[in-house]
Amino acid sequence: MKPIAHLTLLTDLYELTMAAAYFEHDRCGPASFSLFVRRYPPGRNYFISAGLSDVLDYLSSLEFGPDDLTFLESTHMFKPEFLSHLENFRFTGSVDAMPEGRIFFADEPVLELTAPMIEAQIVETFVINAIGFQSMIATKASRCVHAAGPRKLVDFSLRRTQGTDAGMKVARASYIGGFIGSSNVLAGKHFGIPFYGTMAHSFITSFDDETEAFRAFVQTFPENSILLVDTYDTLQGTKKAVEVGKEMAARGEKLKGIRLDSGDMTALSRKARKILDEGGLEDTQIFASGAFDEYKIKKLLDEGAVIDSFGVGTKMGVSADAPYLDMAYKLVQYDGRPVLKLSQEKTSLAAEKQIFRYREASGRMKRDVIGLRDDAFPNTEPLLERVMDKGEILSPAPPLHQIREAFLDEFTHLDDRYKSIDDIDKKYPVSLSPRLIKLQSEVIRRIKEREFSGKP
Amino acid sequence: MKPIAHLTLLTDLYELTMAAAYFEHDRCGPASFSLFVRRYPPGRNYFISAGLSDVLDYLSSLEFGPDDLTFLESTHMFKPEFLSHLENFRFTGSVDAMPEGRIFFADEPVLELTAPMIEAQIVETFVINAIGFQSMIATKASRCVHAAGPRKLVDFSLRRTQGTDAGMKVARASYIGGFIGSSNVLAGKHFGIPFYGTMAHSFITSFDDETEAFRAFVQTFPENSILLVDTYDTLQGTKKAVEVGKEMAARGEKLKGIRLDSGDMTALSRKARKILDEGGLEDTQIFASGAFDEYKIKKLLDEGAVIDSFGVGTKMGVSADAPYLDMAYKLVQYDGRPVLKLSQEKTSLAAEKQIFRYREASGRMKRDVIGLRDDAFPNTEPLLERVMDKGEILSPAPPLHQIREAFLDEFTHLDDRYKSIDDIDKKYPVSLSPRLIKLQSEVIRRIKEREFSGKP
Repeated sequence: MKPIAHLTLLTDLYELTMAAAYFEHDRCGPASFSLFVRRYPPGRNYFISAGLSDVLDYLSSLEFGPDDLTFLESTHMFKPEFLSHLENFRFTGSVDAMPEGRIFFADEPVLELTAPMIEAQIVETFVINAIGFQSMIATKASRCVHAAGPRKLVDFSLRRTQGTDAGMKVARASYIGGFIGSSNVLAGKHFGIPFYGTMAHSFITSFDDETEAFRAFVQTFPENSILLVDTYDTLQGTKKAVEVGKEMAARGEKLKGIRLDSGDMTALSRKARKILDEGGLEDTQIFASGAFDEYKIKKLLDEGAVIDSFGVGTKMGVSADAPYLDMAYKLVQYDGRPVLKLSQEKTSLAAEKQIFRYREASGRMKRDVIGLRDDAFPNTEPLLERVMDKGEILSPAPPLHQIREAFLDEFTHLDDRYKSIDDIDKKYPVSLSPRLIKLQSEVIRRIKEREFSGKP
Repeated sequence: MKPIAHLTLLTDLYELTMAAAYFEHDRCGPASFSLFVRRYPPGRNYFISAGLSDVLDYLSSLEFGPDDLTFLESTHMFKPEFLSHLENFRFTGSVDAMPEGRIFFADEPVLELTAPMIEAQIVETFVINAIGFQSMIATKASRCVHAAGPRKLVDFSLRRTQGTDAGMKVARASYIGGFIGSSNVLAGKHFGIPFYGTMAHSFITSFDDETEAFRAFVQTFPENSILLVDTYDTLQGTKKAVEVGKEMAARGEKLKGIRLDSGDMTALSRKARKILDEGGLEDTQIFASGAFDEYKIKKLLDEGAVIDSFGVGTKMGVSADAPYLDMAYKLVQYDGRPVLKLSQEKTSLAAEKQIFRYREASGRMKRDVIGLRDDAFPNTEPLLERVMDKGEILSPAPPLHQIREAFLDEFTHLDDRYKSIDDIDKKYPVSLSPRLIKLQSEVIRRIKEREFSGKP
C-alpha cells in the first residue's frame, strides 16, 4: 500500500532546485521549519492533529533510489556534484510534534522540524500534504460525531475519496475523530479499524423481487444483516423487511437493521420506526446514509428523525464544505538566526517554539500560549513532544484505538461553544509569550532596516 | 507507486458480503453495470473522462492474495466455500468505455462493464473512485485553461491534494485537461509530464538579504530561474530582481521570470511589468500563484492583470468549489433481463447502452443521444469503445500527450456557452433513443406491477 521508499520524488520541483542552490552555495546549516494552519475554514474553531505517523515513516525511510537519480540526471537540470550528494541523502534531523489526536488551533505549530537545510527543505511538500489532509479529515469527522451525539457513525466515503491513498487516510482519520469504523476493508486489514457494511441497490435489483433478495441476504448473514429498503419504495421496503424479520425471529434470529438511503429521512425514519415496532422488531435499528455531514445530521435530529446510526460518506471524506486547510511550512530559524516571512498579511512566527496549554482543575481547556521553545510556564502542559532525533523515531506509534480514545477524552474538555457548526466567531484564546513577542518585533525591525533601507 | 495487486481489499465491505450472498444463492449470471454522473455540480455543463487507464490496470491484475484471504477468514464473516472461491478470483468480463479525454455529459454512461455478478459487484468501489475523481479534476483543470486563454497553467497543488495518490492523479488529470505540466517531480518521472518550479520564501529568508538569495539561485540555474519577489515587499523585490536580471544580461544570460504570490495581483502585476520593462527586462515573464482557480484567473484578467502564466494549486487540486462528483455505478442488466433502481428521483437507465454524438460539418458538437447498445444512428459517432474483453486489455493506453491533444482538439468543438464558469443553466442537449425510452417504461411498469401489487 505504501512503498514509502519510492515517495522521495513526490515533491515539488522547487524543493530540489532550492536544494541544489543551497548545496552549491554551501548553505547547509541547521534550519528549523514550523508547520501551522494560518486561518480557520468557515465554521471551524479547532483542529485535530493527524498524520504524524505517516510523516515519521516517510522521514525515517527517505532516500533517492538509483532510478530516481537516473531520472534526475536525465533532466539535465542538476549538476553531477549535487546528484552525488543525493546518493547518500538521509533525513538526520529532529522533529517536535503534537501527538496525533490532540486538539490545536490556528497559528499553533503542530510540528517543528530541525535539520540541515537541504533535508528540511526537501520534505516540505510531503509533510504539509500528510498532516494537512489528515488533520482536516479528523476535524471534519469530529464535527459529525459532535452533531450525532450518542449515535454511531461509520465512514462510507471510499468510493468518492480523492484517490486510493485518501480512502485509507480518511478511514484512519475519521476513526481518530470518533467514528466507530469504516466500510473500507483494506483499512480494516491495514489499521485494524472495525469495518461495517450493508447492501447495495444492485443486490436488490438482481433478484426477481425485493423480498426474495432480503431472504437470500439474511440467510447468508443471519447475525449482521442491515437491509436496504429504498430501492423501489422506502415504506413498502420496510414492510417487506418486517416480513423477513419476523421469519428470522421465528428461527431464533434477529434482523439487525434497515437502511434508509433517500427521500425525506425525518418523516421516513419515524414511519419506518413505527412499522418496525408494530411488527415486533423493536430491536431492529435504523441506519441512514445519503449525503450526510454534520449539518444534515443536526438538521434531521433537530427535526425529530429517529435514526440509530449514520453512514457518513462523501461530504466527510472530502471535507466538502472546507476541502483544504491553509497550512504553511515556514522557515523560522536558519543557522541559529530567527527568521520570518514578512510580506502582506502573512507574517510568520520566528524561532523554535512550544505551545503551553492552561487547564482548569476540572481539566477544561482554558487557553494556550505560543512561546519560545525554552519558555517556561508553570502549571501548563507543553503540547509539542520530541518524536524524532537524529533521524530516528524515538518511540513506536501508539495503537490507533488509543489515539482515538485520547482524542475523545480531550474533546470532552473543549467547551461546546468552540464545537458549534455554525459560522460564529468564538475563538479559543491563543496568545504569544512575552519573549516571543519581543523576538518577533526585533526580527521584523531587522528585516525592515535591511530590506527597505532605501536601496532601489 | 501503485502496487495494484494489493488494492483488491480497497473496497466497501458490502461488496464482499453481497458477493458471498450471490455465491451462496448461485446468482453468478452475467451482470452489466453502468457508470455515470447523475447531475452537474454548480456551474458545470460538461465533464472530461479520465481514469480509465487505472481501472483497466486494476481489473487486469485483480486477485486476492494469501494474506487477504487469511485476513478475511480471521473476521469469521465468510464461509469457507466462498473464501475458496476467492482464491481463484479473476476479472473475466468486458468493458465498454469512453477513451480518456473525451467530453461527456450528465446521465451518459462513461463506462459499462459486463461480468459474472460477483466480479462486476466487487469492483464497484474502485471504479467509481478512479474515474469519478480523475474526471472531476480534468474537468476543473479545463475550466481554468478556458479562463486563462493563451496563458500557460502549471499544477502546483501537490502539497494540498487529498493524499499522495491524489497528488499523482491530479498531475495527470490536469495535464489531460490542458495544463502544460506540474510541479510534481514523481509525476514527471512516472507519467512523463513536464515539470516546473520556482523557489520558496524559505530560500529567500535563509539568506542574509533578498538580493543575495536571488544571485545565488540564478548562479545555480542561469537558464530557468523564476525569482519569488514577495517575501518582504513585492515591488521592492521586483526591483532587486531587475538588478539581478541586469547582471545576468551583462553575462549573456536571461532572467526567465518573477513570481508574484500575494497581494493585489492586478495592480502588482501591472507595476511589476513596468519595473521589468523599464529595467530592460521585457522578455522576463510574470508568473503568478496563490489561490488561483478559474474564477480568480478570470477576475484578474478582466481587471487587466498582466500575467504570462499561472501556478494553479489547491483550489484546482481538490476541485474546491465542487470537490466530488455524484457518480453512480448501477446494475442495468442481470442475466439478460434489463433492470433499474426506481426509488425517489434517482431512477437509472436500464440495459447496455451506447452514446451517439451528432456533429455539424465543422466538427462542432451538436447533441448526443443515449441509446441501446445495438441502436444505430447514421452519421453519428459512438462514444463507448470495447476496451477490455474476457479480462484482457484490448489495446495499450495511448500516450498521455496524445490524450491531452485529443481533448484540446475536442474542446474547440464544444460551444463556449457550455464552458461558462457562471452558474447558468445552459445544458448541452442529450436525449434518449426511442427504443431506450420504450424499454425504460416497460421495465418501470414491470417493477411497479411486481413491487406495488398491494402486498403489505
